[in-house]
Amino acid sequence: MMNKDRILYVVGIGPGHMNNMTKEAIDALEDSEIIIGYKTYISLIEDMVKDKEIVESPMKGEVERCKMALELANNSKKVAIVSSGDPGVYGMAGIIYEVAERENIDIEIKVIPGVTAASAAASILGAPLMHDFAIISLSDLLTDWELIKRRVQLAAEGDFAICLYNPKSKKRVEHIKITRDIMLKFRAPETPVGIVKNAKRDDEEVFITNLKGMLDYPIDMFTVVLIGNSNTKIINGKMVTPRGYNL
Amino acid sequence: MMNKDRILYVVGIGPGHMNNMTKEAIDALEDSEIIIGYKTYISLIEDMVKDKEIVESPMKGEVERCKMALELANNSKKVAIVSSGDPGVYGMAGIIYEVAERENIDIEIKVIPGVTAASAAASILGAPLMHDFAIISLSDLLTDWELIKRRVQLAAEGDFAICLYNPKSKKRVEHIKITRDIMLKFRAPETPVGIVKNAKRDDEEVFITNLKGMLDYPIDMFTVVLIGNSNTKIINGKMVTPRGYNL
Repeated sequence: MMNKDRILYVVGIGPGHMNNMTKEAIDALEDSEIIIGYKTYISLIEDMVKDKEIVESPMKGEVERCKMALELANNSKKVAIVSSGDPGVYGMAGIIYEVAERENIDIEIKVIPGVTAASAAASILGAPLMHDFAIISLSDLLTDWELIKRRVQLAAEGDFAICLYNPKSKKRVEHIKITRDIMLKFRAPETPVGIVKNAKRDDEEVFITNLKGMLDYPIDMFTVVLIGNSNTKIINGKMVTPRGYNL
Repeated sequence: MMNKDRILYVVGIGPGHMNNMTKEAIDALEDSEIIIGYKTYISLIEDMVKDKEIVESPMKGEVERCKMALELANNSKKVAIVSSGDPGVYGMAGIIYEVAERENIDIEIKVIPGVTAASAAASILGAPLMHDFAIISLSDLLTDWELIKRRVQLAAEGDFAICLYNPKSKKRVEHIKITRDIMLKFRAPETPVGIVKNAKRDDEEVFITNLKGMLDYPIDMFTVVLIGNSNTKIINGKMVTPRGYNL
């Protein structure tokens, strides 16, 4: 039986600083006694959570972190577990539901959506995601690389604008190159590509290039790569995918 | 030459009420003298913009609306044009850049991203967009229906989770049925489907069903339809697409 008095907030803090959080997310943090999350994310909101109990956790170990959050909440603590961007997009929302089921912890789970890294990067680049688009993570830690490649190819075939998450890590340097090569089978080398690192953070870096040139730019795990569709163009230095209005 | 003193904000007000706006969006509205947008969107934020000059405009007429916003801003007014959700996703951001180019109006355009309808609906349903996903609009007002169908088919083939915008209008009732039938070629009839109308608004309606049953539920232009991938499941009444963690 669900104990509705016990609540775990899964909070999207948006791409960068508090400025990019929703009021709903701010209220959830304020209502919480304990805040759980990656060190990097906690540091982005540290001014807001000074008077809270903080549980910082390293990258990896997501399952354990979720279990801890659920157990604390089940013990009548008010807990928020934070994700950057939106917790529902490669974030903590899904795994929380899965661990709650495994651990048989039946409390209210409230997912609070946030501005995604894709939306943040798009707003900085101009308007590259104005038409149908696909979001694909190039990380093969949890997904078979063959499936990822297949998705890249099908999205390329469908002329979707594409936003790539986790495009490259220190150990995984070839995936972005292979992805670019698949794209080139379906789109012109001049197709605009936007590269945004640390969107909306102090150390934000932004490059607009194209399929041909994109591998010459710095790309890492804090970067998203946005690839235009066949109609995407550069207008006054911004990357714009037309919706199709007759101008 | 760009006049940096002149600025047009393109503001994402998020899916529903002020509660779902970012602080950056709230600040932009506060900084503006004139607010331009659809009547429905203005009504969602009316408490915030009481002391502003409001230009409500009907649906359609986007190009004229953009031109007006740009001209007012170019005449040194502080102007915000508002989109629900994120202005960079089927919103006003792209068309503003296009009209600015056509009209040769060279002012600063600041796009402020918002929580998308997709993220909002996902957060209500559970966590259906945790893995790679595609966003597709079924409206053929500006896009060829053959291209839309092709994208549906390729996204289905690639086992993307899918979020459908503009799934059905009064005049366009067959597209959602055809889309469902294409999906059924690639996914089981039991694949979970979430239907969310007016996400995060007072009159929100939420249904969780599956591919087989989805056409029996109310779907209209204020609805988004989220179709799970082959791993999506129902956990305690929520729709969850696993990321792939080993539990």
